[in-house]
Amino acid sequence: MALIVQKFGGTSVGDAQRIRSVADHVATTRAAGNEVVVVVSAMGQFTDELVKLADGVSPTRTAREMDMLLTAGERISMALMSMALGAVGVESASFTGSQAGIITDTRHTRAKILEMRPDRIREALDDGLVPVVAGFQGVSTERDITTLGRGGSDVTAVALAAALKADVCEIYTDVAGVFSADPHVVPRARRLEKVSFDEMMEISATGGRVLMLRSVEFARRHHVPIHVRSSFTWKPGTWIVEEDPTMEEAIVSAITDDTSEAKITVAGVPDRPGVAAALFRELADAGINVDMIVQNTSAHAVTDISFTVAKTDLDAAMAACRRVQKSIGAETVSSDDNIGRVTIVGGGMKSSPGVTALMFETLSLHGINIEMISTSSIRLSCVIRADRVAEAVRHLHSAFGLDAE
Amino acid sequence: MALIVQKFGGTSVGDAQRIRSVADHVATTRAAGNEVVVVVSAMGQFTDELVKLADGVSPTRTAREMDMLLTAGERISMALMSMALGAVGVESASFTGSQAGIITDTRHTRAKILEMRPDRIREALDDGLVPVVAGFQGVSTERDITTLGRGGSDVTAVALAAALKADVCEIYTDVAGVFSADPHVVPRARRLEKVSFDEMMEISATGGRVLMLRSVEFARRHHVPIHVRSSFTWKPGTWIVEEDPTMEEAIVSAITDDTSEAKITVAGVPDRPGVAAALFRELADAGINVDMIVQNTSAHAVTDISFTVAKTDLDAAMAACRRVQKSIGAETVSSDDNIGRVTIVGGGMKSSPGVTALMFETLSLHGINIEMISTSSIRLSCVIRADRVAEAVRHLHSAFGLDAE
Repeated sequence: MALIVQKFGGTSVGDAQRIRSVADHVATTRAAGNEVVVVVSAMGQFTDELVKLADGVSPTRTAREMDMLLTAGERISMALMSMALGAVGVESASFTGSQAGIITDTRHTRAKILEMRPDRIREALDDGLVPVVAGFQGVSTERDITTLGRGGSDVTAVALAAALKADVCEIYTDVAGVFSADPHVVPRARRLEKVSFDEMMEISATGGRVLMLRSVEFARRHHVPIHVRSSFTWKPGTWIVEEDPTMEEAIVSAITDDTSEAKITVAGVPDRPGVAAALFRELADAGINVDMIVQNTSAHAVTDISFTVAKTDLDAAMAACRRVQKSIGAETVSSDDNIGRVTIVGGGMKSSPGVTALMFETLSLHGINIEMISTSSIRLSCVIRADRVAEAVRHLHSAFGLDAE
Repeated sequence: MALIVQKFGGTSVGDAQRIRSVADHVATTRAAGNEVVVVVSAMGQFTDELVKLADGVSPTRTAREMDMLLTAGERISMALMSMALGAVGVESASFTGSQAGIITDTRHTRAKILEMRPDRIREALDDGLVPVVAGFQGVSTERDITTLGRGGSDVTAVALAAALKADVCEIYTDVAGVFSADPHVVPRARRLEKVSFDEMMEISATGGRVLMLRSVEFARRHHVPIHVRSSFTWKPGTWIVEEDPTMEEAIVSAITDDTSEAKITVAGVPDRPGVAAALFRELADAGINVDMIVQNTSAHAVTDISFTVAKTDLDAAMAACRRVQKSIGAETVSSDDNIGRVTIVGGGMKSSPGVTALMFETLSLHGINIEMISTSSIRLSCVIRADRVAEAVRHLHSAFGLDAE
């Protein structure tokens, strides 16, 4: 008998018919002899409707009240889900994040889980029930209701699976799994049957839209196997698991793309210790996440520092740069939001030196200029013009032999 | 400086515009130097929409999940209310029933408050905040979310006012206060400026629709003055207060009507001890609330017992009567759902013997037959044909001098 955490996103519980369909699937999983814990998001567009109501009431509001408001969404879907389970003969009970023992820090709208105390979930399982848990929410050490930020319901599911030592955390969504590239960009993209945690980390970090980076990180740290799959076809999807040393890995598993970032260049900076530190400290204090960083050293003891930030942070990042421009002795600060990034990810890249060359050759062959490069042992990212990203992904997908037959 | 609990019902928080209007009023109350605790119901028809969703998901459901679902309604309105207060410069924080320390028994959908521990509400007040509390909900001794049943938000407000030793509990609604009769029935009905707890108990018990009996009972037991008033005009409404022994009371304050009940007659019962007990024990065990009871004793050692029950309980009550018919030796059991009740209520009735006579004369003058009578020291109710109720109320309203000029 396996213990399975099944998480259903907004589209999977979008209306009464879909909720009943999910309940049937949970009943089937139970009938096969498994214990099941269900985690649900708010229904479809309900969260957007609540935000619209809040807009109508007040132009500004505290994060605490925003969390109080939005957590109503999962409360509704979890109660409905429990009722739907009852209708197909599965005994269940719903639990808020607080009741499920999800203890977070006090940062409203983007809280981090500090501790899991799922005693009531364990009791419910021991009583033969299917616990239905509200995703996305917790209770802070100050006893206030918090939300976990974007992708928070996945984090709830993975954290529960870890705390309960579940055999697998199934993430149900409206796509069939993780693909070798975005199927909207590459029609011949293939569903991956299995990827390693390390690969999935890179895929999520570089533009893969199926799972947020933080839930993959959490799963890797706690050794929770994830199975990403469709709640519309119920077919097997993609397993995200520990790297298996006995198997030979694909050299390149997936091509990802991301056009959500902009590039900032701080040029003509003296090449001495402390300069980069001063710049990135100022950015960090402004709450800005910096992604790729490239520094070119010239012969003249000055250097250019380029980095990428989310487009939504661009104005704040430029302001931060201008605040330190004088003190670090930079000549110019400039930005460019017409960039995009294309990335190849593969666990087998470590031992395959020809991969970098093939990527550069492929882009060069099609006249695509590379503006920044960054690498890890299993990833290679190139910043190029934004309007060339889609064709770059398609060419790389073919060049690395990923196209479906 | 007074401490005021202000409770706003569903129509008072029905949309964004109304929520902002309430926030303005709370700000005004604060600006006048008062401490304020706000209690809110779910927005307008939102609860009905949730019930409709539940109907679409499952024909049956547990009461626990129904409570979990419905409490999302107040969660939404309290967060929106707190945001609206922020927009007008009033610092506030919202609290669920559980966070507000409303501890109930475990009877889902109709829980009773066992204990109030409003520590967080007191702390919020001490911090200069306006606490916004979800009405209608609490947390059970088993740590599950419960709801307080019909009129539950009023109970929340009164219980909080009692626990916090508030100076007044203001109940805002869509009518101007408590009237001398239902203005839909009697166009010349007047708003009452002040009624005693005892009078209000009788008004609520016999058809007054402004306040549920249980919140009036609670307020009387805990000596919490209530002020029922309009959130549309913001004008003073009706005060419900301790009887003031120094003032002369109105002989009759209000005429109420109720056509929601049916009459059952158990006829030809032996007039001996234990018969009524057996009958009403059977009804009580079936969970049926019996209202008026009249027993006529005849010369032949047999008696007829008539009583009224809610029409919704009529079938169950008839079944209960038939179960004991043989054992108590009753000749017939019959029912009549075309009855109505008209009631006069007044604290001064105690000392005014002519009141009963005037009521009977007035009904008789207009050819209205009285089928059952029941009295308390400050109330007199007559059961008559349902289709004569409206005119009976109007005639009595005039006869007792209640018509507005």
